[in-house]
Amino acid sequence: MSQYFIDKSACRRLTPFPGVEMYTSTGETMTVSLVEMAPGSTIPVHQHPHEQVGMIISGAAEFTIGGELKRVGPGDRHQIPGNVPHTITALEEGLIALDVFYPIREEYK
Amino acid sequence: MSQYFIDKSACRRLTPFPGVEMYTSTGETMTVSLVEMAPGSTIPVHQHPHEQVGMIISGAAEFTIGGELKRVGPGDRHQIPGNVPHTITALEEGLIALDVFYPIREEYK
Repeated sequence: MSQYFIDKSACRRLTPFPGVEMYTSTGETMTVSLVEMAPGSTIPVHQHPHEQVGMIISGAAEFTIGGELKRVGPGDRHQIPGNVPHTITALEEGLIALDVFYPIREEYK
Repeated sequence: MSQYFIDKSACRRLTPFPGVEMYTSTGETMTVSLVEMAPGSTIPVHQHPHEQVGMIISGAAEFTIGGELKRVGPGDRHQIPGNVPHTITALEEGLIALDVFYPIREEYK
C-alpha cells in the first residue's frame, strides 16, 4: 500500500455510536477521519484536547460547537479548538464529513 | 463571524498559480485550505516542512507525491509527510480538494 495515497479500505473502521462509522488514518502528526452518519444518528456531546478541523462533504446535520448551533451542509467548514464541547446529529439525508485532528488521536490508530 | 463555523467568504483567497485558487483559514495549530483548480492547471513540484493531509472533493487530477503518481478522484485521500516533494495537475473536469497542514502555514494567514 502507498504511504501517500490512502485507500478507504485500508483505513481503520470504527463504529463509535449507532449509525456512525469512521474511517481513520494516521499521519506523522495528524489523524484523518472520514465520518459517515446515518439519518438521525448522533455523536453525543464530547470534548478532547486535540484541535479538530474539517468540512462537510455531503448531507446535512445540526452541529453544535461551544454552545453555537448551525445547520451545516456540503462545503461548510468547522474549526474546533481543543477542549471545546461539540455534538452533531445527522438530518434526514445522513452526513459525510472529513475531520482532521492534531495531535494524533491514539485511540483511532 | 463564528470562530467555529468557517464561511468560505471569510477565508483568505489566494491565487498562487494560474487557474489555482485557495481559500485558507487558520486554526489553533493547523491551516485549512480549500483548493479549486481549473482544468489543466498545475501546482508545480514543491515541498515544505509541514505535514499535509487531505481529500479530493470533486473532479480529477494527476497527483505525484514522492515520485509516486496516481490519478485521483472524489474520496481519494492523501498524506504527505514534511519535506516530501509533490505536484498536481487537474484533468479536464478541474479539481476541488481539501488540505490541512500542521504546523500552521504562516504565509497563508
